[in-house]
Amino acid sequence: MKILNLLVGGPIDLWPDKLKNGQVKGDWIGIDRGNLHLIDKGIDPLVAIGDFDSLKPEELQLVRSHIKDIRQSIPEKDDTDTQLGLKVALQEHHADRLDIYGATGGRLDHFLANLWMVLEPRFTPFAPKIRMIDKQNTITFFLPGEYQITKEPDKKYLAFVALTPMEHLTLYDEKYKLDDYHVKYPMSLASNEFVGNTAKFKFGSGVMCVIQSKDIDRFN
Amino acid sequence: MKILNLLVGGPIDLWPDKLKNGQVKGDWIGIDRGNLHLIDKGIDPLVAIGDFDSLKPEELQLVRSHIKDIRQSIPEKDDTDTQLGLKVALQEHHADRLDIYGATGGRLDHFLANLWMVLEPRFTPFAPKIRMIDKQNTITFFLPGEYQITKEPDKKYLAFVALTPMEHLTLYDEKYKLDDYHVKYPMSLASNEFVGNTAKFKFGSGVMCVIQSKDIDRFN
Repeated sequence: MKILNLLVGGPIDLWPDKLKNGQVKGDWIGIDRGNLHLIDKGIDPLVAIGDFDSLKPEELQLVRSHIKDIRQSIPEKDDTDTQLGLKVALQEHHADRLDIYGATGGRLDHFLANLWMVLEPRFTPFAPKIRMIDKQNTITFFLPGEYQITKEPDKKYLAFVALTPMEHLTLYDEKYKLDDYHVKYPMSLASNEFVGNTAKFKFGSGVMCVIQSKDIDRFN
Repeated sequence: MKILNLLVGGPIDLWPDKLKNGQVKGDWIGIDRGNLHLIDKGIDPLVAIGDFDSLKPEELQLVRSHIKDIRQSIPEKDDTDTQLGLKVALQEHHADRLDIYGATGGRLDHFLANLWMVLEPRFTPFAPKIRMIDKQNTITFFLPGEYQITKEPDKKYLAFVALTPMEHLTLYDEKYKLDDYHVKYPMSLASNEFVGNTAKFKFGSGVMCVIQSKDIDRFN
């Protein structure tokens, strides 16, 4: 299985510990300044994408000396750097799984743009390969079908987040069940939980986002 | 104009400074432990909502001594505490504006549930009264029509976030314009900007979320 990781520009304090410690396996694609962070952790990305406008000349030199495949993007272009990252990872490098870090938090227009990329017809077929990971959330995506998913050991909560209207949603064995429910508008069925180590669900149309999460410092 | 504020349970480090400093005007509704934070800032909420299960006896006593109208919610109920807060603020107290703090960040299933409350038919008519505010984003909502909005002095970016499909979206005078665009699926048109102090837009169907935002500590 070919795992690629993509680092985009969200707040560093939301990175999971394994990224902070440089312990994420697989090859990397870095967006803009993220490439400096990866190089700093001893990781040379396969591909660097960005306009690099905010980098000092010596920083840009460092990027050039560590990364062979640099794609200079044009600001005010049609695709964002993150969309370019998806294209490179999924269409060029044929990743079996793409884990995206730095996609959450900070500016919410960015987070929502990241979350909704899977609704673009060009990316929808790849949705099941994509995860977005931060220190308290793991976001995965599903196309219509029946699935059994496994609990992440450190996560307590399970949310079924319908990104679109959705027919025939059934939650078989979760703490809160549903039977053939018709989702009429986007809806976050939050704070559900696993009963045991797996959860089974199905749905007939639309795009489902499943979030496993945990509380951190919720009101210190 | 009757302004109400609602404090829900998101991370404190995302509160805007004026909330940290206790300088937000208007009456408050507090959710669960948020009431302790408000009391700590010298604010006695009009209404406290929550199951209060996580409060120590002396904390619950403090809440009872400062707040007359306490609504004990039942966990595993149909409405979340935040939904109850909206009902109390908008339907009982007839707020002309409801500013929600603590609605962003942390667990993303919670944030998305908060963001999408305006898609529930019972809350949609109130959408234009609702704002969600954190230290780098101000979220507002619009129903079909033509609008002119004003730039917040400290914000650089302007995003048009279509929560639903949408017809006839026109951005008249922003940095990136659109003419009679058909939004086919939810989409965050991020990183647009004001040209001057106001921006004019219109759309014919669906629910629009407008986010003014700024970068903070984006890659320190």
